Formats: sequence, C-alpha cells, structure tokens
Amino acid sequence: MLLRGRPRALGAAALLLLLLIGFFLFGGDPDCELGSEREARRGGGDPGSIPGSPTPRVPPDGRPRSRGTAAFDVDPPADPGGHNSSDCLPPPPPPPKCELLQVAIVCAGHNSSRDVITLVKSLLFYRKNPLHLHLVTDAVARNILETLFHTWMVPAVQISFYDADELKPQVSWIPNKHYSGLYGLMKLVLPSALPPDLARVIVLDTDVTFASNIAELWALFAHFSDKQAIGLVENQSDWYLGNLWKNHRPWPALGRGFNTGVILLRLDRLRQAGWEQMWKLTAKRELLTLPATSLADQDIFNAIIKEHPWLVQPLPCMWNVQLSDHTLAERCYSEASDLKVIHWNSPKKLHVKNKHVESFRNLYLTFLEYNGNLLRRELFGCPCPPPPGAEQLQQALAQLEEQDACLEFRQQQLAVHRVHITFLPHKPPPPQPHDVTLVAQLSMERLQMLEALCRHWPGPMSLALYLTDAEAQQFLRFVETSAVLSARQDVAYHVVYREGSLYPINQLRNVALAQALTPYVFLSDIDFLPAYSLYSYLRASIEQLELGGKRKAALVVPAFETLHYRFSFPSSKAELLTLLDAGSLYTFRYHEWPQGHAPTDYARWREAQAPYRVQWAADYEPYVVVPRDCPRYDPRFVGFGWNKVAHIIELDAQEYELLVLPEAFTIHLPHAPSLDIIRFRSNPTYRDCVQALKDDFHQDLSRHYGAAALKYLTALQQPQGPV
Amino acid sequence: MLLRGRPRALGAAALLLLLLIGFFLFGGDPDCELGSEREARRGGGDPGSIPGSPTPRVPPDGRPRSRGTAAFDVDPPADPGGHNSSDCLPPPPPPPKCELLQVAIVCAGHNSSRDVITLVKSLLFYRKNPLHLHLVTDAVARNILETLFHTWMVPAVQISFYDADELKPQVSWIPNKHYSGLYGLMKLVLPSALPPDLARVIVLDTDVTFASNIAELWALFAHFSDKQAIGLVENQSDWYLGNLWKNHRPWPALGRGFNTGVILLRLDRLRQAGWEQMWKLTAKRELLTLPATSLADQDIFNAIIKEHPWLVQPLPCMWNVQLSDHTLAERCYSEASDLKVIHWNSPKKLHVKNKHVESFRNLYLTFLEYNGNLLRRELFGCPCPPPPGAEQLQQALAQLEEQDACLEFRQQQLAVHRVHITFLPHKPPPPQPHDVTLVAQLSMERLQMLEALCRHWPGPMSLALYLTDAEAQQFLRFVETSAVLSARQDVAYHVVYREGSLYPINQLRNVALAQALTPYVFLSDIDFLPAYSLYSYLRASIEQLELGGKRKAALVVPAFETLHYRFSFPSSKAELLTLLDAGSLYTFRYHEWPQGHAPTDYARWREAQAPYRVQWAADYEPYVVVPRDCPRYDPRFVGFGWNKVAHIIELDAQEYELLVLPEAFTIHLPHAPSLDIIRFRSNPTYRDCVQALKDDFHQDLSRHYGAAALKYLTALQQPQGPV
Repeated sequence: MLLRGRPRALGAAALLLLLLIGFFLFGGDPDCELGSEREARRGGGDPGSIPGSPTPRVPPDGRPRSRGTAAFDVDPPADPGGHNSSDCLPPPPPPPKCELLQVAIVCAGHNSSRDVITLVKSLLFYRKNPLHLHLVTDAVARNILETLFHTWMVPAVQISFYDADELKPQVSWIPNKHYSGLYGLMKLVLPSALPPDLARVIVLDTDVTFASNIAELWALFAHFSDKQAIGLVENQSDWYLGNLWKNHRPWPALGRGFNTGVILLRLDRLRQAGWEQMWKLTAKRELLTLPATSLADQDIFNAIIKEHPWLVQPLPCMWNVQLSDHTLAERCYSEASDLKVIHWNSPKKLHVKNKHVESFRNLYLTFLEYNGNLLRRELFGCPCPPPPGAEQLQQALAQLEEQDACLEFRQQQLAVHRVHITFLPHKPPPPQPHDVTLVAQLSMERLQMLEALCRHWPGPMSLALYLTDAEAQQFLRFVETSAVLSARQDVAYHVVYREGSLYPINQLRNVALAQALTPYVFLSDIDFLPAYSLYSYLRASIEQLELGGKRKAALVVPAFETLHYRFSFPSSKAELLTLLDAGSLYTFRYHEWPQGHAPTDYARWREAQAPYRVQWAADYEPYVVVPRDCPRYDPRFVGFGWNKVAHIIELDAQEYELLVLPEAFTIHLPHAPSLDIIRFRSNPTYRDCVQALKDDFHQDLSRHYGAAALKYLTALQQPQGPV
Repeated sequence: MLLRGRPRALGAAALLLLLLIGFFLFGGDPDCELGSEREARRGGGDPGSIPGSPTPRVPPDGRPRSRGTAAFDVDPPADPGGHNSSDCLPPPPPPPKCELLQVAIVCAGHNSSRDVITLVKSLLFYRKNPLHLHLVTDAVARNILETLFHTWMVPAVQISFYDADELKPQVSWIPNKHYSGLYGLMKLVLPSALPPDLARVIVLDTDVTFASNIAELWALFAHFSDKQAIGLVENQSDWYLGNLWKNHRPWPALGRGFNTGVILLRLDRLRQAGWEQMWKLTAKRELLTLPATSLADQDIFNAIIKEHPWLVQPLPCMWNVQLSDHTLAERCYSEASDLKVIHWNSPKKLHVKNKHVESFRNLYLTFLEYNGNLLRRELFGCPCPPPPGAEQLQQALAQLEEQDACLEFRQQQLAVHRVHITFLPHKPPPPQPHDVTLVAQLSMERLQMLEALCRHWPGPMSLALYLTDAEAQQFLRFVETSAVLSARQDVAYHVVYREGSLYPINQLRNVALAQALTPYVFLSDIDFLPAYSLYSYLRASIEQLELGGKRKAALVVPAFETLHYRFSFPSSKAELLTLLDAGSLYTFRYHEWPQGHAPTDYARWREAQAPYRVQWAADYEPYVVVPRDCPRYDPRFVGFGWNKVAHIIELDAQEYELLVLPEAFTIHLPHAPSLDIIRFRSNPTYRDCVQALKDDFHQDLSRHYGAAALKYLTALQQPQGPV
C-alpha cells in the first residue's frame, strides 16, 4: 500500500509543482503572451507548424505569405489555460549586479553624433550595470564623442573607439541605396573589428531609444541555444514580404524578416562559424541578381538568416518597437505592458505619421532634453574605476569649506562642463595662412545676435554656447528655421552644458578658442557687431604686418557702442566718426568704464592712417586679433568682472605688442544687463569674491613672471575697480 | 519493475522540480538576498529566532537591542545554497496590465504642493497603470493642485480631493513636535476619510521620489497574510532604539520600528479591525507618559504595531530608502541592484549630509526639472476615459492643416499650458475696496526686472511666468537668494509651463489677471517701472473717481521710455518732464510706433491737473487700470503683435471710458528685442499670420458688437500696421 500509494502521491506532488512552475514562470507576465516570440518560434501562423521548434521554420517557398500579419499579432491564446514553455520563455534572471555589459554603435558625422548621445542618455538613465561602449566612428564623430565623454565623466562607463574609415574597404564594394550609406553596412564587420576576446555585444542603431534597463536585454543571451549567435526582433512592416508595391523586390528573408536596429551578437560563435566568409558569400551571391542593398546591413543579415536559420534567436517584439512608415508595431505595443526599446526607423524619424507617435515622441524628448549631468550617478556597490580626473575633482570639492563666502565661485571654477563640440554640421575653412576666426560665447538670451553677426562677419566663427540640454534643442530649431544661419557651414557651434549658478565666461571662451581652426583668432564678444569690412581688412592687415613670423602682436579692434537697438550701421570709418560726433555712437563704455579702452587712444585712432603701438595700462580690455596659439583665458574668472582684463595682462606679460588697427572697428549693441552684472552691482560679497580672484591672479602672475609682473601689481594699488 | 521504477523516477523528478523552483524563484534576484524582509520576519538577529514565522517576533523586553544594526544589514547568507521561502519572497507578479492603482497623499500649503508635484512626476514617469490619486489637501494646496491637474491633462490619472481642514479635529488633540505639523498626523484617519469601498491604497509622504514602477510596490499586497493590513519598510536609523542621545525617549516600536513615508494599507481590513478606536486608544495611552509625538503619525503607527504585530507586513528596504540624518540606508542600497523609492526624510531634505547624496539628488533633480508635458503619454491598450477636454483638443488639432502657413500660430493657440498658480508662498492682501494688483507676465530673460519692480510697486502683484520646469527651479532659487523678493508675500507668481514656439502672451496675461485678488488691476508689462507713488496714487484716484460703482472706466497710466539701462528714475511728474525736455526720456515708442500711445495726448497730460477723457483711435495700446472683472485678453494673439491693441478695442467696445490720470506715469527700460519681435520684423509669413489673426479678431468683433464695431473696421482700412 505504502509503496503503491507513494507513486501516486509523488505523481500528484509533481503535477502540483508543474502547475506551480507554470503559474510562476509564465502566468504572471502578460508580455509573455505576446505573439512575437511564440510565433516567430513557430515559424508561421499556420496551424500545422511545429510548436516548440527551436529555430524558425523555413516555409517551402522561402517567402511564407501565409504568415501574413500574424507573426507579431497577438493571437487569442489557443490554449488559454497553459502556456507551453517553448512558446513563451520567461524573462531570464537579470545579469549579476555589477556585470559589465558590452554595447556597440556605428556613428558617423555631426547629426548621428547628436542622435547617439540621446540614445546613450536613455541607456544610462535606466542602466544599473557598468557599460562598455564600443563606438565605430568616422573622424568627425570621434572628435565630438571623445570630447563629450571625456567631459561627461559618467561613472562605470568605458568607451572604446574604432576607426570606421579603416573598416570601409571591407564593405565599400557593396552597392547600397539606404540613407545610412556605407556606415549602415558596418555592423557586418563587427566580429572582426571588435576585440577578439569580446564574446557578446549588443549592437544598436543610433535611432533607437531605451525605455528600460539594458540588462534585461542582455539577459536574453541566456535564451540562445548552443548554436544561435544573433538575437533579433522580427520586422514590424511588410517590406520583406515584397508586396508593398508593384515590382517591389526585397532581399530574401524569413517571412517578414528581422530588423537589425537592435542585435544581440555572440561574436565568439560568429567568428567560429566563419562569419566573414559567410556574409560575404551571401552578399555576393545575392548581388548577382539584386542591384544593391535597400536596407543596408539588414538585407544581408536577413539573407544570411534565410540561409542559416539556426543562427537566429528571435527576441520579444518590445525590444525593437519599429516606428517605420506603415509600421505594424501597434500589434506589439498595445498588448505589451512595457515598451523596452523604440526604434525611429523611418527616414522621417520623429516626423513619422502614426496615431500614437506623440507618446513615443514624448519618451524620445525626455532624453533629448534630459540634463546629462544628472547621469553622473554612481552605481552603488559596484567597484568601478572612476572616470579620469574624477577622483581629483572629488578631492578638490571635498576641500572646499562650506562657510567660505565665495564657495559659489570656487564650486563654479571646479565644475567640469560637458562639451559637445561642433553641435551642428560644420565644414572647416580651407587652410589659408592669414585667415581669422571670430571667437565668442553666448547663452540663449543672445541668440538673436547670431543672424546679424553672420551678416557682419562672412568668415569662419567658433562660438561656445552655454545651454541646458533642452536649450540646445531650441537652439537647433532656431538655426534650422533661420535661412541666414542654415546657409553658413563655416560657423562652428560648441555647446557647453550649464552647471552651477555663475556664468563660466572664460571657460566658454577657451572652448571656442581651442576649436578655432585658422591661424588667427578675433577674440570678440557676442553683443558686438564688427564693421562689414573687418574680416577682409584683418586678413590683409595680418599679411601686411607679417604677423605670425617673429612678430608677436595683438591687433586691437577699437570698440564703440550704440544705445539704440535699431540704428544704421556705419559702412566706413568716416561714417562712424560722423555718428560719433553726432552723439549717436560712443566709444565703448564711455560713460561707465572709460579706462577699459582708454589706452586704445581714440583721439589718435581718428587720425591714424597706419597701425600704431599702444602700451598696456590698468584695466585695459580691448578686443584683439591674435595667433590661435595665444594664451588661454584664466578660467578662475567666473560670473562678471575682470575676465578679459586678466587675459590682456597675460598677453602683455608674454610681450605681445599691442597694435591698434586704423580702419578696424566693432560696435556694441544695447541689451539688458545680465543677471551676473546685476549681482555684481547689488551684492558686496560678490564684489569681494571677484576681488579675491583678482588677488589670486596677481599672486600667480608674480610667481610666474617675477619682477616683470610688478607693474601689474603697482597698477592694482590705484584703487579703481569696475563699478 | 515498471511500478517500482516509477516512484523513484517521480521522486527524482519532483526533487529536480523543487530545485528548479528554488532556482527560478529565489536564486535569480539578488535583491532577494537583502536582509530587510528576511530579518524583519525573523524578528531579530539572534540565531534562536523562529525562521519563517509569519509575523515579526516581539522580543520579551519590547526593545530588542540585540537586533542592533543587523535588521537591514546584509548578512553573509547563513545557508548559501538554498533560500527558505519564508526568508525571502520572490517579487510577486505585477498587477494586470490596466489595473487601477490607488495612491493617497496628504498635502498642505505652497511648498508641499511643489513637492507633491515632483513626487507625482516620478510616479507618472515609471507607471504603466492607470492611477487614482487621493489628495488630502488644505485650501491652498487644493487650489494649486486642482488647477495644475486640470491643465496637465495626463491620460489615465483620476484625482479626488479630500478636505484636510474637515479632518483636523480628528487629530488636533494630539500634541506633535514634528515639522510636518498637524498634517503629518492625517494619515491615521485615511481609513475613514477615503471612500468606504476603497479597499487598498498606497500612502506616500510628499518627500519621496520614485525610481521604479509603482505597480511593483502595489504587487506586494499579494504577500499580505490574511490578517496583515499595513505594509511598511523598517526604519533605517536608530531613532526608535532610543540610544541617540541621553534621555532620548522615543515612542515604543518593534526594534528599529517602521517608517511611514511609504505605506501599503488594506483599508478594508483596518476598518474591520476597528482601526479608529485602535489607534486612538494607543495614542491616548502613550500620551499619558509621553508629552507629544516626535515623528507625527509614525510614532503612533509604531506604537500600534508593537501592540498588534500581526498587522504589519514588512516590505523590502529599497521601497523606502531613507536619507534621514545619520541614515543607515547604505546597508540597503549598496547591495540592492535597484532602488525603488527614495525618501528625503531629513528636515534638511536635499541638503542632508551623506556621501552618496549627490547621486540621489540627481535622481530627484531629474523629476524636479522634468518637462511635465512629456508625461501626457497614453497607456497603450488601456481603455481609460480621456481627461476633460482632451477629446475636443485632439479633434481641434486633427483639423489643422499641415500646409497652413500659420500652422505654428494655430497650434500655439490650441496649446493647453500646465499652470501652477502661487508657485511660491503667498499671502493674499487683506480686502480693501480700492486696492490694485499689478498684473504682468514674463519669462526668464526678464527676471532681473523683478527686484526693481518690487521697489517701485509696494502693493500686490500677480505675475505669470512662462518657464520650463527646470527654469521654474532657477526662478525659485533666484527668489530665495534675493532679499528684496523673499521679503514680499504679496507677490503671487504663477508658473505657466512652456509649450510651443510662440510666446502665448495673452494666455499668460489672462492667468495673471484671473489670479488677481483685489477689486482693481493695473495691466502692465514687465519691462516697465511705475512711478514710486503710483500704487498709492491709483488707490486714491479710484476712490476719488468713485470707480466700481456705476462708472465703467479704464484709467490710463501714461507710458515713457528711457534708452539707458542706468538712469535716475524721476521722483515726480515735474522731474519726469525735465528729463523729457532734456531728451533723456521719450514718450513710449516715440520713434518706432507713436500711434500706440498718441491718443493719451502727452501735450495735454503735461498741463493736466485732473483726469481727462480720451477717445479710442486705431492701434491705441495704453497701460490701464480696470476692475478685476474686465474683459479677458484675446488668447488667439500669440507671439508678437496686436495683443494689447485688441484688448483695448474690447474695452472700448464694452464702453469703458478712457481716463488719463494726470500724475500717473510708468517708464519702459531698454532691453534687446525678443526673438518674437525679431521674427515679426524679418519674416513676412509671420507678419501675414498676425494680419490673419487681426482679420479673424475683427470678424468676431463685428459678429459680437454689430454696427458698433464698424469704427474699428474703418480704422483698420487705413493701412498702418506695426513695423
């Protein structure tokens, strides 16, 4: 009895356990009911397909129209009570807490660089694991992204760059009609381009946005069978069904095929399987009958998968919700409780038509406008090497005293601003020996100066913009809607992201200065409009004066000001003098701060026919043209006060001649005082702090130049600080 | 053989299944290893405690110091191979896709209202379920939050308000020393205050921030045993251990006690258990020996739990990571792979000292600065009634034609801006029959006007600020650091959140106007400074002219302008006239747009000793004082142009007398032209669209006023639009 009873009891217990497992593993997750994975694994919607088949079934004709739209439709569960484990895998356990996840992205050019940053922001927002980003970039993107990540200082993120131009020959033989161009094909060469010891990687297009933790995606590697090497989400359009229009002849694919915007790659297995030969053979064979790829790498991936279906592990549809034109993605997202990754794979991108696009766009805008500084969050409990410089920064910040009245200044000086150089497409000027770049910095409230500046200065410019992430997007739209600005490719805009309460004026100037590509720079301010002729006059003067050889000089551009917003800009020095005499123009800050420009000697300038040398005097802050390798601005000066004065002292200390140009002029336009100037005027502590900066500066000056710096200290004794 | 073999095979299968279950259920989740729940369930760190006991064990002395800090420490697993199911429950399955989740929050006053919005933003960001928010508010918070949610229009969010003042008597007898005051105690009365059919609710403090989907928290209700009614996270400080300082005598609690910043409440069970009597009895009894509650409701909750330990279901520590002073939370968050809820439960809030506070602060700032408009995301596949007005809005937007050259204008007109009235603490002015509120609107770039305006206008103001969420925080800091601004309680700041590319000037004016609380309003612009005496002079004039009775009048305040940022403001009309004659001042827009103020008749004003009546003429746009119930501004005028002109026409059409005040004046300060004015000047399409708005306006005017509106149309025939 006992023996006979036990098997029954055990059998019942086992059944109960099976039911329990069924409930816990598959009953709880409504996403599990999504057709994508189940159907893809079934290999077709036809009832005769083999349930539980580990690889997609290849229908006999290779283009299984019978699957129709069912592939990622949500079928009413055929068997509502029980889910078969091969139909629907449970979400695998997340990777261990501090496991390093590997991500590869191909990125080229200015616009893609902006896109990839938004993608990375979404990634970082949800991630809980250390990440290693493998970026395959052209020179432009590398330049941008290297600066950005260096200044971003996100903990637990490693970056490696790979030269896309070196990889080009491997794919450039493939004719391709896709808008992504040659770079679109580069995902094919990742197994050989990435380090040989890298076994797994998630490959992402630049136009995807994460809405969840990438570790959940990484965890899906666990579902791979022994042979599977490529994880992909099925296409959410009918493209590969070949019925979109008459004579539409897509590349071969299994049914709807797969989308390569999000790929899980087992690099080790692909290498073992002879991937390089495999894809090249397939591509060459197909190109015998097809003129070119239409969807770049995706066509080739699909052709390979059609040939070697055992390679692919289908992924749940919500890991690549494709908002292409005529997308069928709604079948996925209206049932899923959770969208994981959104893919803007229409050439129209955010402007794609879709009744739900507004909601997806909101998610995208979230990260587009997200303050990237906030992603400098630690991963608690993960021992990762800090980003370069982070430890020194932490130490310096820790040494600040909370009671210091100038704490705000000290914090601002230590702030490491994220820098996005050449935020918009930019074409470097052709090398010319006497060319000059106008260098300036601004924030949103001076944006309206840009068009006028472009009209006045036809040459190259390097402008640093101090913006929030959201403002950077407003700025982008501003340029796009301005005919004047969008016509200019020689203006480089460098976004320096805001952090802290004081305007880091000299740090901004240094960013713009460092990015100037001509041998000379005109160090201007954004509220000045140069004479129309200044650009060509400066180049002629530089040539004439034989600057750049042994002669170390700063050319002074005399500064004037108007008090009227609308005035007719003088077209010549003669006209300017007439306006000056009529009281419509003044020499700059004539009323408030004459010593700032007094040494320029306006009286002499009136009569001057040739450049004349002037001597430095206290508080002199002219606008000058200097070689690009001139001294940098002193970044300790933040907020209002003394930022240019210190730079001119530095030039003088380094024995730059100060030469005033007789035909050059620039005119300041009126604007409301900045918040910093208001604080300077109204707040004695603020003024004390600026004074402390000046004192520090002079100490450093004496230390550096010794007795030669004495004259600056002496000048300082005569109390006449800015008011 | 067969029969004998089966039991063994079945036994082995069962064992395997058990192991499998063990692995899937408990092996995968590292958070599961956290001590919080396991330890709390054990009831103590002593090895002799009863593993798997369903309720916390009450140590004999009631204050189990032996538990020490172990309660939410991560112990090295005593039994590394297998986890006992009572030690560590798996995360329960999430609630069904569209299940409505219930949340209750107590909120009173201006500052708490700002806090609760940040909390709600974090909630909405991660949520996938419809939510019903039950807000227990005082009148101030209700006014703010009602307007906010009404204009926010978030899909799938229901709001119910409960009057905190009505509930006060139920808790006001309890002496309380906690900074949250009486409102801190109100969570105790939720079972009776919330609707009787509401069975479950998550109760949140206003100082918590979500870092995850609230549905995961809701799912923990599934862990409640039949009797448990309160889900809480253990305290992450030693407060209730009573050893923080000498003679520190906290309320009784189980060990470290529990924190009530996040509560899962089974309201149904509490009602059944006679909650009201229960907590009142306990509180009264404890208050016999203790002078007051120190931590408000939390003291009483803990005392009850100590008495009725079966009531509590301990929750995993990451659902309430407490950043109190001297927090021990690091033990929780350094091991968890995922923080769920952060609780700023120090009186220092974000300024609390903690080596990791920067990372937590970043998460908080994420939602503080998050563009709330982006939370207007649909929940795909959840059939929820749309927010009031949403359908009409959708229809109106759908009717716009993409090819319309003025599409931008039409979209801007339809934009529903989130409005946060009285963003900062505000004391309404005491009712006075002739009092006047200055009404104006501004955006960030005019912030620097506020201090000067406060000096010039000592009376009440109602200002609409057009800001992003991030700018609203900058504005807050700006006010906090300004002695002048923070001294004023009679200035009401209403934040209207930015949306769209055109400045919705008249919508802003209407918000400020609607919130003015005095019988009269001075409709000004932010770049004007009124005469120092204007406030008192206006009140006297209103009284003298017996306005408000039968006399329907608009008092004209003549407008002037200076072209210098810094000038000495005239202290009297005589001084003003001197400056005018000296050419230091001009009548407003004398050079660019004289017709805007010509009817004011400045020549007559020079000599006037008494108010004089003037007649409307085309393009007249004076600054006027009118009764608060005056016509609203026409919201169709967005961007630059004609926005005030239309309002004055409306006043004239409604037969307001236009009376110029002989001693009143206001002076415009210079500023750079706005982006909208620049677009108006440079963009012919923009001007055409403004013209189209004017035409529409006149059509409506004729429809409304018939023949009486003829004069406005006639005036329009003479072409002289603004330049």
